[in-house]
Amino acid sequence: MARVICAGLGPGDPDLISLRADRLIRSARHIAYFRKKGRAGQARRIVEGMLAPDAIEHAMEYPVTTELPFDSPAYNALLTRFYDEWSTRLAEIARSEDVVVLCEGDPFFYGSFMHLHVRLRDRATVEVVPGIPGMAGCWHASGQPITWGDDVLSVLTGTLAEDDLIRHMAAADAIVVMKTGRNLPKIRRALVAAGRIGDAVLIEHGTMPGERVRPLADVETAECPYFAIVLAHGRGRRPGAGDEA
Amino acid sequence: MARVICAGLGPGDPDLISLRADRLIRSARHIAYFRKKGRAGQARRIVEGMLAPDAIEHAMEYPVTTELPFDSPAYNALLTRFYDEWSTRLAEIARSEDVVVLCEGDPFFYGSFMHLHVRLRDRATVEVVPGIPGMAGCWHASGQPITWGDDVLSVLTGTLAEDDLIRHMAAADAIVVMKTGRNLPKIRRALVAAGRIGDAVLIEHGTMPGERVRPLADVETAECPYFAIVLAHGRGRRPGAGDEA
Ligand SMILES: C[S@@+](CC[C@H](N)C(=O)[O-])C[C@H]1O[C@@H](n2cnc3c(N)ncnc32)[C@H](O)[C@@H]1O
Ligand SMILES: C[S@@+](CC[C@H](N)C(=O)[O-])C[C@H]1O[C@@H](n2cnc3c(N)ncnc32)[C@H](O)[C@@H]1O
Repeated sequence: MARVICAGLGPGDPDLISLRADRLIRSARHIAYFRKKGRAGQARRIVEGMLAPDAIEHAMEYPVTTELPFDSPAYNALLTRFYDEWSTRLAEIARSEDVVVLCEGDPFFYGSFMHLHVRLRDRATVEVVPGIPGMAGCWHASGQPITWGDDVLSVLTGTLAEDDLIRHMAAADAIVVMKTGRNLPKIRRALVAAGRIGDAVLIEHGTMPGERVRPLADVETAECPYFAIVLAHGRGRRPGAGDEA
Repeated sequence: MARVICAGLGPGDPDLISLRADRLIRSARHIAYFRKKGRAGQARRIVEGMLAPDAIEHAMEYPVTTELPFDSPAYNALLTRFYDEWSTRLAEIARSEDVVVLCEGDPFFYGSFMHLHVRLRDRATVEVVPGIPGMAGCWHASGQPITWGDDVLSVLTGTLAEDDLIRHMAAADAIVVMKTGRNLPKIRRALVAAGRIGDAVLIEHGTMPGERVRPLADVETAECPYFAIVLAHGRGRRPGAGDEA
């Protein structure tokens, strides 16, 4: 029996891939990755130039992304079938050959691979290689540490209800909001209500080509790409620090 | 002018270091790392066998670790002087030669380097290379994803007051508690009060030699090493998942 190996790619810069993941990706005969139909796919783009010349590529195209509400039965049914089918195909490949599944950031942190993992773990040998989460790439892009001393960090998703966002933002020292995209106006209102809009930074494409870092208060438009995170930095305990921002 | 470069080492397994950090570490003429007086130091241990034969090592030994309360004026004064002195020494080296500072996990996530960073950034060219945070190594060691769907992740430190721990634990879906060590009994009581003790896992030395993963409820003793994290996994939205734990 061969293996299904999920390789965390880190935030986007290929130089931030781990030694282990790099080796696995370069030597893989079978490479699988998620993408939106008709797109190149961010994971595939990160490994451009790294794949073996004879690598066989398996593009796993989401049947739906934002066309249906993510909590609707139709969305759930489509994705269930998608993950069921792909887990079966990957398990079949792994009967004879290793297959490497690419995953942006860290695979076990809001990663799509997790939905294959729960379906595969009793049918195949599965290995998962951690990666630097996208949020870490984003706080490095901002040039500032995210947490100090005993700061509380709250990681939220823009898909939460506005009231939930406000409640968690108000209770935290440092804030990360994942899955911004079309949720940006709601996230911004919640930050205002929680009194944190002045601290908030929008990072688009952290460590990727086209990286952009802006105070959220200065962002006029509601347009926001899929790879975007909102951060508010903590300001906890720092020996001798009277002077820092 | 040369640079002060902080290289994130990731959770402990040297194979999880990024390509960029690996290259910087192997080619460094000057290597600096924090350690407790009289100890080898975890950061130095991770890079064992990687340093250039002529590398000059700078061991930055904490003047105090747990001997004084971390919120006492004496602790603050000792650490302030320590960070002031080392930032001056590193800035001096960086006038002519690069110096690579090692940092476990990700440097901008509760890292000691941050205290040098605030002191150096106006006096030297500073570069920081992200790393896989220790917590990611720990949730991979547990074999389970940490967050699904729109799970809220709360990252806490064992140094918080018990009431604060309880409040944040009760509000979160997924929980990470850093800086466990001697705070373990307090963390355990807080998890009981927040109704999450049944979900809690203690990970010691995640991805390092001697890695150990146990349900916290089964841990008899209050003894806990410095490199230990408590996790409670989220159980959010999963298409088609009636069956998973
Ligand atoms: C389905 S989650 C996957 C998270 C991934 N497993 C990780 O560890 O970062 C996708 C979300 O991650 C965030 N994201 C990941 N990498 C990013 C980057 N380099 N820059 C900005 N946002 C990023 C965006 O908010 C995006 O909506
Ligand atoms: C001062 S913080 C530094 C965190 C580091 N910068 C990071 O990104 O993980 C030290 C704490 O990190 C946690 N830690 C870091 N790496 C760990 C590992 N591999 N296993 C268990 N705990 C770890 C422990 O809770 C420890 O008390």
